[in-house]
Amino acid sequence: MVSRAIGPDLPLVLAMLQTLPRSEIAARLQQLRQLLQEQNLDGFWVPSADEHLNEYLLEHRKRRQWITGFTGSVGDALISQDRAWLWVDPRYHEQAEREVDPNLFTVIKGGLPDQPSLMEIVEELGSGFRLGVDPFTVSVASYRQLQTHAQAGGVLLIPVAENPVDKLGSRQALSDQPIYPVPVHLCGASAAEKLAQVRQEMRRKRVGLLPLTKLDQVAWLFNLRGSDIPYNPVFCAYALVGLERAALLTDLERLTPSARQMLVEAEVELWPYEAYPEQLPQWAKGYGPVGLDPKQTTQGTQELLQGIPCRELDHPVEALKAVKNPTELEQMRLANRKASRAKIRTLAWIDRQIQAGIPISEADVAAVMEAHYREEGDWVGLSFNTIAGAGANSSIVHYGTPDPQKFLQPGELFLLDSGSHYLGGTTDATRTLWIGSEPADPLCQRRYTEVLKAHIQCARQIFPPDTYGVSLDGIARSSLWQAGLDYGHGTGHGVGAFLNVHEGPNGIHRRATTPFKVGMITSIEPGYYQPGWGGIRLENLYEVIPIPEPEGWMGFRSLTWIPFDGRLIDWDLLDEAQRAWLDEYHRQVYAIHHATLSEQDAAWLKRACGLS
Amino acid sequence: MVSRAIGPDLPLVLAMLQTLPRSEIAARLQQLRQLLQEQNLDGFWVPSADEHLNEYLLEHRKRRQWITGFTGSVGDALISQDRAWLWVDPRYHEQAEREVDPNLFTVIKGGLPDQPSLMEIVEELGSGFRLGVDPFTVSVASYRQLQTHAQAGGVLLIPVAENPVDKLGSRQALSDQPIYPVPVHLCGASAAEKLAQVRQEMRRKRVGLLPLTKLDQVAWLFNLRGSDIPYNPVFCAYALVGLERAALLTDLERLTPSARQMLVEAEVELWPYEAYPEQLPQWAKGYGPVGLDPKQTTQGTQELLQGIPCRELDHPVEALKAVKNPTELEQMRLANRKASRAKIRTLAWIDRQIQAGIPISEADVAAVMEAHYREEGDWVGLSFNTIAGAGANSSIVHYGTPDPQKFLQPGELFLLDSGSHYLGGTTDATRTLWIGSEPADPLCQRRYTEVLKAHIQCARQIFPPDTYGVSLDGIARSSLWQAGLDYGHGTGHGVGAFLNVHEGPNGIHRRATTPFKVGMITSIEPGYYQPGWGGIRLENLYEVIPIPEPEGWMGFRSLTWIPFDGRLIDWDLLDEAQRAWLDEYHRQVYAIHHATLSEQDAAWLKRACGLS
Repeated sequence: MVSRAIGPDLPLVLAMLQTLPRSEIAARLQQLRQLLQEQNLDGFWVPSADEHLNEYLLEHRKRRQWITGFTGSVGDALISQDRAWLWVDPRYHEQAEREVDPNLFTVIKGGLPDQPSLMEIVEELGSGFRLGVDPFTVSVASYRQLQTHAQAGGVLLIPVAENPVDKLGSRQALSDQPIYPVPVHLCGASAAEKLAQVRQEMRRKRVGLLPLTKLDQVAWLFNLRGSDIPYNPVFCAYALVGLERAALLTDLERLTPSARQMLVEAEVELWPYEAYPEQLPQWAKGYGPVGLDPKQTTQGTQELLQGIPCRELDHPVEALKAVKNPTELEQMRLANRKASRAKIRTLAWIDRQIQAGIPISEADVAAVMEAHYREEGDWVGLSFNTIAGAGANSSIVHYGTPDPQKFLQPGELFLLDSGSHYLGGTTDATRTLWIGSEPADPLCQRRYTEVLKAHIQCARQIFPPDTYGVSLDGIARSSLWQAGLDYGHGTGHGVGAFLNVHEGPNGIHRRATTPFKVGMITSIEPGYYQPGWGGIRLENLYEVIPIPEPEGWMGFRSLTWIPFDGRLIDWDLLDEAQRAWLDEYHRQVYAIHHATLSEQDAAWLKRACGLS
Repeated sequence: MVSRAIGPDLPLVLAMLQTLPRSEIAARLQQLRQLLQEQNLDGFWVPSADEHLNEYLLEHRKRRQWITGFTGSVGDALISQDRAWLWVDPRYHEQAEREVDPNLFTVIKGGLPDQPSLMEIVEELGSGFRLGVDPFTVSVASYRQLQTHAQAGGVLLIPVAENPVDKLGSRQALSDQPIYPVPVHLCGASAAEKLAQVRQEMRRKRVGLLPLTKLDQVAWLFNLRGSDIPYNPVFCAYALVGLERAALLTDLERLTPSARQMLVEAEVELWPYEAYPEQLPQWAKGYGPVGLDPKQTTQGTQELLQGIPCRELDHPVEALKAVKNPTELEQMRLANRKASRAKIRTLAWIDRQIQAGIPISEADVAAVMEAHYREEGDWVGLSFNTIAGAGANSSIVHYGTPDPQKFLQPGELFLLDSGSHYLGGTTDATRTLWIGSEPADPLCQRRYTEVLKAHIQCARQIFPPDTYGVSLDGIARSSLWQAGLDYGHGTGHGVGAFLNVHEGPNGIHRRATTPFKVGMITSIEPGYYQPGWGGIRLENLYEVIPIPEPEGWMGFRSLTWIPFDGRLIDWDLLDEAQRAWLDEYHRQVYAIHHATLSEQDAAWLKRACGLS
């Protein structure tokens, strides 16, 4: 699944069902303005982000959605007494028009010429304008930028103690789902061991206290999982790590007995979630400089630490979490073999249905895919909403709703991008198929093969230490570019081990300047999309492995073992090394799976791998 | 010539001739400590940089060299009453040992394990330590970093009004070389037109005043050149650009009458260089926010603006200067054709000498190369110190002294990297040769061809808008990496139009995140180096050109027309597209030059281009 640059908007579909009448939004706006006036504020900034700066929000923290009616995942709002603005990026221009009343909000369409930026509007609010900001909804880095522009225009930024949007209307309660442990035999290191790793980094960076505010960081550190957010196995929490003590701050009621037992053994103190603003400064006073990552920490956390020495750093947990330990790698391999088998069974099933002339819809495929995932042991859930795009729908990169009325048609492309969480491992893989028994359309075949070349070129690349993802992004695109083709998303994203399917800091895209290290996981997923015609994306997950020589160099080994569609491959377009890679890959796909499949699926796989 | 990442250290050789006895350094240190004590300072920071943050320093601003004896181009010193440290990077470990007295300075060897960073030492100077800094020798961005670490350790940074190193000893006077104009027919836009461009950007970025502190920015803006720094046709100056007025601050005595006339016509105010600290704040008070680029402006400039609103931005002149106008492009093409012809004549001469059995040294080649450059019209000077490395010397990337005792030996490689300034254009090209008439060593041939593949792969790449140099860096390295090979420098650097041979912001290297635009100039210069064996580098300059389709996409067109050494090419290692590129390149090389060469040189070229 492509990363968020232009990735599928998963909560969107759910959220759209909740779209409210515009009169309700007008009433809310009026209430908010009233409240601002009482608090002596001329305006209020409502960004998308919540207290944990996650890709997806906790449901009850969708403040911008509540006040604007706009359900997209990204987009900031600014509300003054007489004006209101909403900024949206190109993928949401149309949706914002549909969802937002232009009488209530001026929608600013980012990416179009002459649209003012948020920062420009802030500067022009007028000297002395009192702009309220909830510092827990903005990163330290973004707050600084806002501050610079506010100062340039004489605007006063006023941090508010309680978010006025929260004061209005009733919001859903927090999740009631349990918070449960991942046993060490699945994650490879106890919470105590991970704390020791983190503390070693803290000593190296000379900080005495490290707050964790991102939910996947907390889940990783304490080997806990939850389901407070769809598709992300995390739970609402903070953590504090000192050199001598550590704390988890969460809804303690929801800890399972075994989770509680494990935390006690690791000598982790337990505090309620709400204690964070009080505990953080208390801990900080005793423990020397506090380590803060300005991009990954809210300004609110920074403000809780006023007067206490802080040291800026890249959050050590990000780097530790990205390099998987041997057990995590083994679990990732296992989970991806399971998920690969489930997808192979689904692809074989699609072919059989089509051959039998049984109509199947996008939604049918998504349902069968999920059923096959579920049949593998230790299935926890999908890692994102399955993307199943038939025909022209395959060109919509963030196509998020498999349509029960849209049927797979012979003579068309079909794109299936899906993944699951298993206890211990997370998966994500995309295949594009030719539907039907007629030979593939030559243009589809050529484009597919060009995307496949890009995939193989990246997957077989070896590289020295300190190679950035952005270099590999260029290598993946090189041959597509030579054909005048490109794709509007990143080539790859990091993946958590039974954690978020999009995980930093490594990636393969234009902004990816984290050096690859052995044990990191990345997707490789080049594509090609032509609206109205169709789209192609070919995605495997890979682990970064050492190679025998030169010393210290690295390469990729696939975690995903699913055949590519032979009907769409023009072997003449591949060079010798690419053909060898593909032959060997298909040989391994067959070797890994054939004994575990039904006879008819095994026969399908043999053909699909070009072995019969 | 490779950029400064690990580039040749040109002033080094000159500077080494000036190395002083260590007793002299001890005396200077003692004087400095005395002076610091009088100023109530516990220590002083002496970085390499000067007031203009240039790659090469004005001679009289080499303060760190003066106080440490270390002549390398990069390396910061910190001096307290009882300790002194010098930080050097890996290319200078050996040189620092040779030049610096360990009884006077602790040399910190960056890149080795467990070496404390400057920032770590600063933190540990002790709470209340008063560390003096000349804010004109450090960028705003670096000063901020220093401030953060100083605060963490309770150290007080004390900006000093007059650099204590300057107070000691006598230093050479400023240059007495003239400052002369470049006519518009060579640079394509008058100073008035460039001022209008800059002001348009200033309005867009909403700043009322823009200081220029980098020497090549000033030279570009006013179409002036000088020779205050070896190889860089610039002069010591500042500029101030307001929306209604502009000023040049320099040694006005050295302006030629035509330069003065041109400036008067462009309505540029003239002030002495020394008036900068007084004029900058005066101008700033009247003209709204001042635009400051924190990476390209000294902290000293920032401090002159205390209490005046500033706006941080990427310096607009950097982007304007990088995109060459049609006249500059034409001049760059012309200059590079001249320089290519000079190099062809030199390569032909080398072959003839070797065939005739006449011994020629590295220094002989450098001298003949310069003579041939000089014979072309409008020659101004070398754009850097010629690198002429025979045999094992070819592996020293920053080999800077052509040796009169080192002779070119048949059966060895020879690397020639050189360039010139002509009025209007700057050049830079590298060729590696096989010496002698025996067939080339197969390993040399293989390595050469692998480097050539990397060069061609990058040169023939087409790419969409917003492509970063780092992506192209990956593309250039891809096939070398597959062979387990790499080179420790960037693939390409920007080049000025009759300005510095290394120019930002565009480049092809790991940190290059400036999108390429039509009209930019870049070198492409992959290499391979094996100490003791030899080195290969193949460098052309290219202009970025639009391609017919897809719309908005770009490609490269060569400015350099010099044959590659056919003796070292294994055509079987090139793919079809690479062979076609090379054939076409050689066809053009011959077409461009043959009629302008002597009969014997034309015959040599015909053979070298594989046409006879």
